Amino acid sequence: MKKNKPYYAVIFTSTRTNVDNGYAEMAEAMETLAKQQPGFLGVESARSAVGITVSYWESLEAISRWKAHTDHVFAQQQGIKDWYSWYKVRICLVEREYDFKKVPS
Amino acid sequence: MKKNKPYYAVIFTSTRTNVDNGYAEMAEAMETLAKQQPGFLGVESARSAVGITVSYWESLEAISRWKAHTDHVFAQQQGIKDWYSWYKVRICLVEREYDFKKVPS
Repeated sequence: MKKNKPYYAVIFTSTRTNVDNGYAEMAEAMETLAKQQPGFLGVESARSAVGITVSYWESLEAISRWKAHTDHVFAQQQGIKDWYSWYKVRICLVEREYDFKKVPS
Repeated sequence: MKKNKPYYAVIFTSTRTNVDNGYAEMAEAMETLAKQQPGFLGVESARSAVGITVSYWESLEAISRWKAHTDHVFAQQQGIKDWYSWYKVRICLVEREYDFKKVPS
């Protein structure tokens, strides 16, 4: 992750249907493809009752380009048709951050 | 979730140690307590290899108050001592959002 420069987070929260139909493969393919996009900074993903994927980007333009990427548009359409009963996307400006890392004892 | 007004997201990403020591109980207690705080709007949480909790707040002041809440400070200290090998906190302004909900067929 680059730092010390304003950047953006896209929070994608979702609940899944019980339809599989290639979901895991598509999720992996989209993560691989996202990482190749200009302005991509990182991605973190977890799923329990709800799924949360946060991707990080250099600019709003980079986010718009990724949203409009042909393969991604196809995945979004299949997501609406098959995979998600609900989702929400929030585009956010990261204003402040801090972290902690345990020192091995 | 309230809407149509600028609001903030706190993205808390973490990796756990293998130490339990009351982790689940504390996580639940903190979620209950967060919900009682002024300016709290919502929270979503998931854990796979990484844990992601996103909480939503009306203002930076509400976030600061919650960070400084005595019981929360105690939990944070135990988190650093026992539960987390790594975490990162990002405080973000939500600039845009949209959602999808499947219509039952």
